[in-house]
Amino acid sequence: MAGKLSIIMYSGTADKFIPLGVLAQAGAAMGMEVNIFVTGFALLGFLKNRKDAPFPKEFEEMAPALMEGMAKNNVAPWYDMVKQAKELGAHVYACSMMCGVMNLKKEDFGTLVDDIVGAATFLQSAEGGQTLFI
Amino acid sequence: MAGKLSIIMYSGTADKFIPLGVLAQAGAAMGMEVNIFVTGFALLGFLKNRKDAPFPKEFEEMAPALMEGMAKNNVAPWYDMVKQAKELGAHVYACSMMCGVMNLKKEDFGTLVDDIVGAATFLQSAEGGQTLFI
Amino acid sequence: MAGKLSIIMYSGTADKFIPLGVLAQAGAAMGMEVNIFVTGFALLGFLKNRKDAPFPKEFEEMAPALMEGMAKNNVAPWYDMVKQAKELGAHVYACSMMCGVMNLKKEDFGTLVDDIVGAATFLQSAEGGQTLFI
Repeated sequence: MAGKLSIIMYSGTADKFIPLGVLAQAGAAMGMEVNIFVTGFALLGFLKNRKDAPFPKEFEEMAPALMEGMAKNNVAPWYDMVKQAKELGAHVYACSMMCGVMNLKKEDFGTLVDDIVGAATFLQSAEGGQTLFI
Repeated sequence: MAGKLSIIMYSGTADKFIPLGVLAQAGAAMGMEVNIFVTGFALLGFLKNRKDAPFPKEFEEMAPALMEGMAKNNVAPWYDMVKQAKELGAHVYACSMMCGVMNLKKEDFGTLVDDIVGAATFLQSAEGGQTLFI
Repeated sequence: MAGKLSIIMYSGTADKFIPLGVLAQAGAAMGMEVNIFVTGFALLGFLKNRKDAPFPKEFEEMAPALMEGMAKNNVAPWYDMVKQAKELGAHVYACSMMCGVMNLKKEDFGTLVDDIVGAATFLQSAEGGQTLFI
C-alpha cells in the first residue's frame, strides 16, 4: 500500500518549486497516488509563457550558489521532475477560483496542467492521505 | 464520511489569508470537520483592530491586479469565507504561547476566534485528518 | 494511540523555527512519533557554524518586540525545543539531495541532525500520519 500524496502549491518564489518537483517525483516513484493543486502565485510558474520566478528576498544572495550546486549535482529542473511524476501517474490541477481572479484559461497553461478544478474537488480527492501546503 | 481538515495558520502576509478562507469554506461546505489554529504573524489578521496585512515583497507589484480580479469575480473577502465556514461548524483557535509572547488576550480578537488553546490540544484534535501549515 | 507527526522543514527565516520547535516538542510530549526532514534554506539553521537566520522582510520591524516577548514569557529557543523533542524520541534528518547541492556533509551539522536521508525514505516513514510543510 503506497498511499496518497496531495500537494497544494501556492507559493510562487523560485525556490519552492524544487521541493514540489522532488516530493512529487519521489512520491510517484514510490507508487503513491500524487495530485498537485496549483493556486496563488504558483500558477505563474505553470504558464505557457512563464517568466523566471522571483527568488525570496531574504535569501537572494544565495541564488547563484544554489543554481551552480544544482547544475553540478545534475539535479533536474523542477519542471522535468513534475513531468517525470506525471509519467508515473501524478496529476496536476489548476485552481478554478484563482484562474478566474487572474483571468487564466486552460490554454494559457503548459502541458503539465491536466485540468482546472475547484478546491472542494481537490480536498475530496486528498482524503485519507498526506496533504502538504507549499 | 467527510473527514477532517486542520489548518495551522502562521503566515501573516495578505495573500495567504485567501487560501485559508477558500479551503476552510470548501471543507466545511463538504461537511468536513474544520479546525483552524492561528499563530505567528497570522494572529494580527484576527485582531479586533487589525491593520491591512503586508503583501509579500516578491509579488508586491501584482497586488492591485489581484485585488481587482477578486472584486470582478465577486470573491468574498477571506474574513467572510472563514465566517461562512464557522456557520457550517468550523472552529478557530488562537495559539496560547504566541498570544503570551505578543501579549494578546481573548478580548483583543474579533468574533472569529472561539478560544485560545495550546499546540498540543490542537495537534490532538487534528489526529486522523489532513493537516496544513499555511 | 498517539499518532505520527512528520515535518518537512524548508523555510529558513528565523520566525519559522519557532513553530518547528513548538510543534515537535508538543507532539513528542504527547507521545507522537515525530520525524523532521530538514531541507532548503532551513538546513542553514542546523549547521554547526550557523549564523542568525534572516527575519522575513514583511515583518522585520516586529522582530525586537517578538524577541522581547519570548524572553519575558520564558519561551525556550527553538533549538532547545527540538532537543527536548529528541529526548522524547523525535528524529531529525537532513535531505540528501539538498546537502549535495549545498555541499554539506554529516559533520557540518550540529548534534540535532541524526542522519542524511532521501525524500522517498522520509515520505515512506510519514505514511499514515499528519505531515506538515513549514
